[in-house]
Amino acid sequence: MSIKNLASLSRDEVKNLFSSIDTILTDCDGVLWLHMKILPGAPDVLNKFREMGKRVFYITNNNVITREEFCVKCDKLGFTSTKDDVLTTSYLTACYLHDIGFKKKVYVVGTSGISRELSRLGIRSFGVGPDPLISDVATLVMKDFKLDPDVGAVIVGFDEYISYPKILKAASYLNHPDCLFIATNTDERGPSFINDCVIPGTGSMVAAIETCAGRKPFLIGKPSTYIIDAIRKRYNVDPERTLMIGDRCNTDILLGTRCGFKTLLVLSGVNTLDDVMNWKQSDNEEDRGLVPDYYIGKLGDLLPLLT
Amino acid sequence: MSIKNLASLSRDEVKNLFSSIDTILTDCDGVLWLHMKILPGAPDVLNKFREMGKRVFYITNNNVITREEFCVKCDKLGFTSTKDDVLTTSYLTACYLHDIGFKKKVYVVGTSGISRELSRLGIRSFGVGPDPLISDVATLVMKDFKLDPDVGAVIVGFDEYISYPKILKAASYLNHPDCLFIATNTDERGPSFINDCVIPGTGSMVAAIETCAGRKPFLIGKPSTYIIDAIRKRYNVDPERTLMIGDRCNTDILLGTRCGFKTLLVLSGVNTLDDVMNWKQSDNEEDRGLVPDYYIGKLGDLLPLLT
Repeated sequence: MSIKNLASLSRDEVKNLFSSIDTILTDCDGVLWLHMKILPGAPDVLNKFREMGKRVFYITNNNVITREEFCVKCDKLGFTSTKDDVLTTSYLTACYLHDIGFKKKVYVVGTSGISRELSRLGIRSFGVGPDPLISDVATLVMKDFKLDPDVGAVIVGFDEYISYPKILKAASYLNHPDCLFIATNTDERGPSFINDCVIPGTGSMVAAIETCAGRKPFLIGKPSTYIIDAIRKRYNVDPERTLMIGDRCNTDILLGTRCGFKTLLVLSGVNTLDDVMNWKQSDNEEDRGLVPDYYIGKLGDLLPLLT
Repeated sequence: MSIKNLASLSRDEVKNLFSSIDTILTDCDGVLWLHMKILPGAPDVLNKFREMGKRVFYITNNNVITREEFCVKCDKLGFTSTKDDVLTTSYLTACYLHDIGFKKKVYVVGTSGISRELSRLGIRSFGVGPDPLISDVATLVMKDFKLDPDVGAVIVGFDEYISYPKILKAASYLNHPDCLFIATNTDERGPSFINDCVIPGTGSMVAAIETCAGRKPFLIGKPSTYIIDAIRKRYNVDPERTLMIGDRCNTDILLGTRCGFKTLLVLSGVNTLDDVMNWKQSDNEEDRGLVPDYYIGKLGDLLPLLT
């Protein structure tokens, strides 16, 4: 297995590659933009893909906004999108509970991105928003908090209001073995630093809760293959004719490997070529699932090869 | 290797066992008391041990109080203690930094139990107390927070004010490879439920931070063997003539196994005999380190066997 620099291929080789592809799944932050800063050329490449007749899906572990809000963001940054092109983990989580016929209430550690997607599919939830420790832990458990017996699931997503009461409540619901435990995703941190700061991701909140709950969650987002089940339920997708583009190997590329997609790593986000080379030489089979088929500096660098 | 019920041994067998022991290390919550509720007979057993000439240490992963405060608690509950008998992880963490000649500043995710033990050994720290998200993450990293270049260590202990800003700050300091990362302990949850609530432990906070920091901490508390290095630096302790008593196998008993102590599990706290039997039959060598030499329902049940 060799990993190829797309930029070093001839125009014909690139043409051949893309003629074998119908569907393109692209990650967003780190591939199309960094936070609200567009990565040069990325919108043109996606437009070019569509012009070539490819179906493009935005596939993101983002769970803080709804699909509609995601489209507004795309529009602001110059990317064409419709709701049906967008797969956020907030939406996919709601789909999952809906598809299994879930009828109880959900305790959400996360944002209204999740609660609104749930609500649209008729699923009741609570927990979003600040929930700080008011007095002390003893008062919390003796007086302030009562377990709601109608809760049948805990969803953990990104929650900037993560707090001791939230962790305690989630773990207490999860102590009942029938209570479902769902993580939107487990991304450890944001794809870039801001002012030298690490931006903790959903994975931090999930780790806090799974540790005291003593249970592992069902994972919705990349690299869980639930995502491809959800897509194939709705669209005709042939894995062999699908390309997964991402900047993070343990979510994007691993998803592609597991689903039998072709994979393309862009070096504009989390992982470097050094990371990839280390995994490639690893004796651990899991590490080798992190190695993409192709890489390129940034998505925009593809444009001259496609025109 | 067989695990023996102490209560089923003859008085002579028990006498022989204790004549081979000089030093007794005992865990506290789940062994001597549950929160502030004394476990019947426990103070009498410790008094009996001392009467028999044993040196007794209280060895606790508790990091929210100082050694002095711990003695006050012991006194309230009817246990005899002096500061020198007490090994809390707040104290041991301060010892560790002191012993390696640490001169910089510490960012503490934890309580004043840690900051006061540090201060007593002349080590500067900050971070204790509430630190909620005031506006949003962008404002936090763009305006509100500046990394302090004098920080050389992050300590994570139990922090009921755990928050997104704290996790972000810890991970950002830890992004510098020279910054030490120390966890007082990794206990997942408290030894009992209160009103059906799980009480998340230090392990939850550590998991949140290590996940986004992408690093594993140096562990001070049980089952890390640092604790026995710290004891032996100060006292003459022969591992073969030492008994470790605890209610939690993955901290107390594992520490004992690793240090070559004799081990006694009391069933008044976290682990059950079923847990132990599962580990005993496991093919995994690590699991077998969780199996104690002896068990008993509760510490107080020892009293009739000793008199």
